Amino acid sequence: MAHAQATTRPGGRSSRVLAAIHTAVGELVAEGSDKMTFPLIAARAGVNPTTLYRRWADVDELLEETAVAALTQQGGAVPDTGTLEGDLSEWATLIARDITRPVRVRYLRAMVGARADLVTHCPVTERRTEQAAEMLRRAEARGEEVPTVAQVLDHVVAPLYYRVTFALPVDEDHARRLARDVLAMRR
Amino acid sequence: MAHAQATTRPGGRSSRVLAAIHTAVGELVAEGSDKMTFPLIAARAGVNPTTLYRRWADVDELLEETAVAALTQQGGAVPDTGTLEGDLSEWATLIARDITRPVRVRYLRAMVGARADLVTHCPVTERRTEQAAEMLRRAEARGEEVPTVAQVLDHVVAPLYYRVTFALPVDEDHARRLARDVLAMRR
Repeated sequence: MAHAQATTRPGGRSSRVLAAIHTAVGELVAEGSDKMTFPLIAARAGVNPTTLYRRWADVDELLEETAVAALTQQGGAVPDTGTLEGDLSEWATLIARDITRPVRVRYLRAMVGARADLVTHCPVTERRTEQAAEMLRRAEARGEEVPTVAQVLDHVVAPLYYRVTFALPVDEDHARRLARDVLAMRR
Repeated sequence: MAHAQATTRPGGRSSRVLAAIHTAVGELVAEGSDKMTFPLIAARAGVNPTTLYRRWADVDELLEETAVAALTQQGGAVPDTGTLEGDLSEWATLIARDITRPVRVRYLRAMVGARADLVTHCPVTERRTEQAAEMLRRAEARGEEVPTVAQVLDHVVAPLYYRVTFALPVDEDHARRLARDVLAMRR
């Protein structure tokens, strides 16, 4: 993944340009711009539109990457409490808190609205998959029984994103209940 | 709910008008109309726009009702196989089949895109809640252990809608697995 490399490479011109583009997207989304184009984003970021056309297939892909970048900066490491129940519970509440922020809700709706056909690449899901896999690996190493990564995605991640995209209320108690529910599937 | 009454009252002028409006919405959505207005829908349905302004608070509410009406006509009764596992498994595959139809995907995206603030009324969720409650009531009457209605919504309904709105693949095996997963929460 070229994008992941670019976002993790520290310092340098390329990472400054990328940061400017992400900031521009964030500002435009926050202002409620509903027709996002590469020239518009480039103008705001003060970069040449060619940079954008070269790096991303379309605006949707850039939008998603920006959301993932924002997430990565914010969260970083996944919880490591010593038990899978503690980790999943804390992780679920972090997701709930994160995706209910107005700017994130806007990103998610813009992302969903922009998708037409089935996607083969969904950065949000991929990022959550990596995080879940990491917590499950640690729990297994401790000798705990674990659900599958797919179950964690279906039963913790999906219900939270469902509620946010459908504009239904999400709270931390609900997030913790989802973590308990998926753990009941281990037996 | 005034709408539910209107849709279930058989025959008569009012139900003919309602059917014409639902058909008009369905056609416009299928044609990919992205700016749906009451005058546009009224013109297509051959009714007075006042009828629409009187009955629905906004276009979004009408869109949702149309989606629910389409669903009700299609499905009607929930599965009654004699076991909760059979019922939930069949119900999940019906939902998967229903919401992956292109016209339904468009409805769902339009609905999600139109929502800004938290909603207090979500016909799709309400309809699924009633269906889940009915299957759980029957299972309890047979003496089966049952998960809660909220668990069925979070762990069967939400993952399916999540995948459809995020344009991720959904299939019937996945739907059946969700039904098995939620049943594992009973213990």
